[in-house]
Amino acid sequence: MTRQQLVEHIHLMKSFLCVGLDPDMGKLPKHLLNEPDPIFAFNKAIIDATHVYCVSYKPNSAFYEAHGVKGFESLVKTIDYIKMNYPNHFIIADAKRGDIGNTSGMYAKAFFSEMKADAITVAPYMGSDSVKPFLTHKNKWVILLGLTSNEGAFDFQTKELSGKKKVFEQVLETSKEWGNEENMMYVIGATKAELLADVRKIIPNHFLLIPGVGAQGGNLEEVCKYGLTKDIGLLINSSRQIIYASNGNDFAEKAAEEAAKVQKEMEKYFI
Amino acid sequence: MTRQQLVEHIHLMKSFLCVGLDPDMGKLPKHLLNEPDPIFAFNKAIIDATHVYCVSYKPNSAFYEAHGVKGFESLVKTIDYIKMNYPNHFIIADAKRGDIGNTSGMYAKAFFSEMKADAITVAPYMGSDSVKPFLTHKNKWVILLGLTSNEGAFDFQTKELSGKKKVFEQVLETSKEWGNEENMMYVIGATKAELLADVRKIIPNHFLLIPGVGAQGGNLEEVCKYGLTKDIGLLINSSRQIIYASNGNDFAEKAAEEAAKVQKEMEKYFI
Repeated sequence: MTRQQLVEHIHLMKSFLCVGLDPDMGKLPKHLLNEPDPIFAFNKAIIDATHVYCVSYKPNSAFYEAHGVKGFESLVKTIDYIKMNYPNHFIIADAKRGDIGNTSGMYAKAFFSEMKADAITVAPYMGSDSVKPFLTHKNKWVILLGLTSNEGAFDFQTKELSGKKKVFEQVLETSKEWGNEENMMYVIGATKAELLADVRKIIPNHFLLIPGVGAQGGNLEEVCKYGLTKDIGLLINSSRQIIYASNGNDFAEKAAEEAAKVQKEMEKYFI
Repeated sequence: MTRQQLVEHIHLMKSFLCVGLDPDMGKLPKHLLNEPDPIFAFNKAIIDATHVYCVSYKPNSAFYEAHGVKGFESLVKTIDYIKMNYPNHFIIADAKRGDIGNTSGMYAKAFFSEMKADAITVAPYMGSDSVKPFLTHKNKWVILLGLTSNEGAFDFQTKELSGKKKVFEQVLETSKEWGNEENMMYVIGATKAELLADVRKIIPNHFLLIPGVGAQGGNLEEVCKYGLTKDIGLLINSSRQIIYASNGNDFAEKAAEEAAKVQKEMEKYFI
């Protein structure tokens, strides 16, 4: 998907919500556990119910891999289902991959050529040659970890380098040269919204994928204040708050209600 | 596998060689492509031929994921095969995972509970809570990326922090407190063997997984000079040089010859 297509879809839907698909077997509605593929059944219902309120889905690879080959199959089916039925929705494989060049090339093949995701999250620690192989795939995106929303973010990401820059700032500064605003985005945790102003000094126009609004404590208004660009430039992810709004028979309906609430809040940024 | 079991196996085999299983369809012997599962057929032959010269196998997840569900199946079968037939060989899932706490927990489930690997490579960028969930699995290991062997290692890992430490040194320093010498190892690239002396000042006894001897230009003698500990403390990985020694009918035989050469070189360190 091109940046222009994504931006147009965002404006059409008046939403920049990304729904995180993290299907945890222990939290699925009981009645789904008898389905041949409970994870896919859950995702399908969530997707059908929420697609009018969001512009993106982000299946988190770990939740599928945890169930071995069968789980991997559910992931493939989920991405196929979105692609087939809601082709304008931006699909992010949240896989946090990254390895030496030829190996990253294999991961790119896995997620872009085999699975047809639009984007993949990538870890920056191994540097340029671990990221660039993903950027050779046309109209596909790398979403590089910049500043994450977990407590461990303070272990290394916010450490100061000798030139006074923080590690995550150096990551943004260096990596923005590897690609451009048409094929790179960044993960920036919403739990430190004020740091978004610093981020925007380095990458004023890149799209940011913001996790941590909701369950992890971030606030939409704060995030928009510091992060919004002229063509929105944000994808706000919400997972648990939406997909686990209820674990009864009404789980999809309740998920839609939660997604609708967020979309409603987002509407005011489209004028 | 416990550290003691690993060390005993290393002494028994007079080898600290790890064979990397990176099956690239374009490099497999032609006659295997007609097999129902060419990747598994290749791995099985390589494993049967090399197991007397090595103590560990390291399947690289990307090379399997690149073939979708079928590739994932080959990975599972490969690990099962080693576990069943060579239970003393240390199995490293080279997956370079790492995410926020509950997600890392899912990856731990995927590789330790579902797949029964002994160890997984983990990226440090997201800090403590991205690593600790792997450490709660008894007799399982995290192999954390410290200093990698690729050119991108110089983008961030070797940058100097304001306290004069390099980023990778800070990673070693901080992370060694998350676990201990019985459940953590580190990836340290062999292409900068002299940096191993610095590494050993911070983690004198931890096992190091050393990629890059052979194809990536590292030298075994140099690595041993700076990295060896009283109970060896090293796993030296070689992938391409061994598994692609020939792409003819004799591929397994030639792989064994290459592995034997490395084992022979290693013998002198057991006295």
